[in-house]
Amino acid sequence: MTQSNSSVPKSQKNRQPSILFHADAGDSDMLYFSSFNAVDPYLAFSVGRKKFGIAHSSEYGRMVAESGFDEILLLQEISEGAARRFKLPQGQQPDTCQLVRHLAKLYRIPSFRIGARFPAGLAADLQQAGLKLEIDKNVSLFPKREIKTATEIEALRKGNRASAAGFRVVKKTLTESKIHRGQLVHQGKVLTSERLRELISHAALEEGAMALHTIASCGDQVCDNHSPGHGPIMANELIVVDIFPRRPEDGYWGDMTRTFLKGKASDAQRRLVRTVKRGHELAIRMIKPGQVGGKVHEAVQAFFEKEGYETDKDSKTPEGFFHALGHGIGLEVHESPIIRAAAPSKFKKGQVVTVEPGLYYLGLGGVRIEDVIHLVPGGNEKISHAPYKWEIA
Amino acid sequence: MTQSNSSVPKSQKNRQPSILFHADAGDSDMLYFSSFNAVDPYLAFSVGRKKFGIAHSSEYGRMVAESGFDEILLLQEISEGAARRFKLPQGQQPDTCQLVRHLAKLYRIPSFRIGARFPAGLAADLQQAGLKLEIDKNVSLFPKREIKTATEIEALRKGNRASAAGFRVVKKTLTESKIHRGQLVHQGKVLTSERLRELISHAALEEGAMALHTIASCGDQVCDNHSPGHGPIMANELIVVDIFPRRPEDGYWGDMTRTFLKGKASDAQRRLVRTVKRGHELAIRMIKPGQVGGKVHEAVQAFFEKEGYETDKDSKTPEGFFHALGHGIGLEVHESPIIRAAAPSKFKKGQVVTVEPGLYYLGLGGVRIEDVIHLVPGGNEKISHAPYKWEIA
Repeated sequence: MTQSNSSVPKSQKNRQPSILFHADAGDSDMLYFSSFNAVDPYLAFSVGRKKFGIAHSSEYGRMVAESGFDEILLLQEISEGAARRFKLPQGQQPDTCQLVRHLAKLYRIPSFRIGARFPAGLAADLQQAGLKLEIDKNVSLFPKREIKTATEIEALRKGNRASAAGFRVVKKTLTESKIHRGQLVHQGKVLTSERLRELISHAALEEGAMALHTIASCGDQVCDNHSPGHGPIMANELIVVDIFPRRPEDGYWGDMTRTFLKGKASDAQRRLVRTVKRGHELAIRMIKPGQVGGKVHEAVQAFFEKEGYETDKDSKTPEGFFHALGHGIGLEVHESPIIRAAAPSKFKKGQVVTVEPGLYYLGLGGVRIEDVIHLVPGGNEKISHAPYKWEIA
Repeated sequence: MTQSNSSVPKSQKNRQPSILFHADAGDSDMLYFSSFNAVDPYLAFSVGRKKFGIAHSSEYGRMVAESGFDEILLLQEISEGAARRFKLPQGQQPDTCQLVRHLAKLYRIPSFRIGARFPAGLAADLQQAGLKLEIDKNVSLFPKREIKTATEIEALRKGNRASAAGFRVVKKTLTESKIHRGQLVHQGKVLTSERLRELISHAALEEGAMALHTIASCGDQVCDNHSPGHGPIMANELIVVDIFPRRPEDGYWGDMTRTFLKGKASDAQRRLVRTVKRGHELAIRMIKPGQVGGKVHEAVQAFFEKEGYETDKDSKTPEGFFHALGHGIGLEVHESPIIRAAAPSKFKKGQVVTVEPGLYYLGLGGVRIEDVIHLVPGGNEKISHAPYKWEIA
């Protein structure tokens, strides 16, 4: 793929490069650009600051009502124009490449900027047809996605309220459960990871969000740190509950983790929870605009090591603090910046990131505590709220 | 992007081309290839018939337990090898392009086949580094995705059971509602599209599926046929409910539509419902292996026209039967084949498709009836089941 070069007409020199998308709302840049929830891929582009969406007639009304496009073109009209331009036989529809070439002529677009995730098949067709494409190799076409607006902060608060609703039902369920032969029994049935997930999903739904891949696991299962958890929840074992629901209304996420234990904790479990909580507090104290992300991760890891908790993060059965301290969150649950060892980027005002230290050891289990914070001048404010009480008698 | 050419070593000539992915489970081909639900993009490839996944240590255990890969490589080990191969300075991690180049050397892969949706940024980097890529321009790398296995059919049946659970709660709610000044009142509150969607989501969840963008709209709103519906559900108006839930467990969908009316229907509404139902039956009678998809759509449209229902599908306010008769369904809610006018492809045994004729006219409202069928020798079997009773007193 070639970079756009200086053969651009003079009149185009000073305007922003035209962006091109062919994607559905699963592409977070497309969703950011369009504010439109589309199940199927469609074309969108910009000319200067003006954003254009192309709608099939069956989507046209909804796109007018719901999207953030400045102008909406009817696919059928663009198709007719392209069919004439390329002199297609009667009844033959232009392909997506021909539609884009037609739009480039119509709007005098000399070259398109595309994101790194643009579909390679269409990119190859466009280039073969002589269209100039400039691929933006960054994670996102919109670096400002990292800096959240007030509306986005509010949506993220709401997402986290759905997580918090999940913790309330977990706490209630654990409180109501009886211990029988080491397992928990709730409303006459053995309480399982699967059942907890169901209860959490209903609670999140009541808050307008979908919790799809909730983690609710206990004991050594937690050490497999993306495992959702399976089977009975055991008494006297650490239970990690990680709830990251998404709001269908606007596409923003919540992402919180709490650790619980039903019964009586051992000294080793208590010390593990206390240490992770102190690591969590240390990170939140350190994070402010200008601070280097990697330094915060490294400080937490150093604290854990000082407390005697070693990390092996590169083996097939990693242990200790083996994942990133946190990540940006917005229209994707994991987005830039990632806060991990050696990460060189500095925090900026307006970013929203998770803070989620964890420690995991086979035989003892694992602990993770996660909140979401918003970078404000001189520090940060927490935008996720749920109690940290974890030992439930 | 170049096609792979004949400079492939002899030993490679007869083996299947190596496929390469860098995607998360949102890419349906990646999900089909891996059977692994990943939130973040990762690398996967094939050598002959053997499928390889690359896991970060924090995902390794889960990938071993849950995925369909034949071999799982630890990202940290591959990274170390790549760092040595490219003589990277101490502490510098290889980028994704370097990881792929390292894998190509390790497994003696002369060229990779990539899907049309492969990320253009990585494709450009790989080609610039001299790697040969062959882009498969088809909708999917796996044409056999159209032909469902018994396991897939069962998952699709379950997805549709979640849709059916949604219709049960809709019917119950409409039955329990009282009419007050043209609106419906349920449990003391005005019944809205939003409330119906909530009830449907909870019902689908009980069946293990997530109904994210359910349509529950009434009156003229239905004519905007992808609009989810907003505000009060009105008495004596046609209510279209389209429920397409997805099962987080395996990624398969349900997709069913029923039309309802609370109160008393007019003759025009009754005739519209009856005509769509007859179009639905006509399509189901016609669909069998060997039948041409476009012919079925055209037969339904001709029947509607004979009954006096004209279609204008190309305007900004389309009316009549303006959408496709149906579509394949599997790991995507809309997949190949699409059944629309002039579609030349013939149905094949093992395909699973929706059949969803609809008619929409401003002032009268709209009707859509949708089921999912499985192509079997000589015909089809319905794998979605819910009553068609629509008028609720």
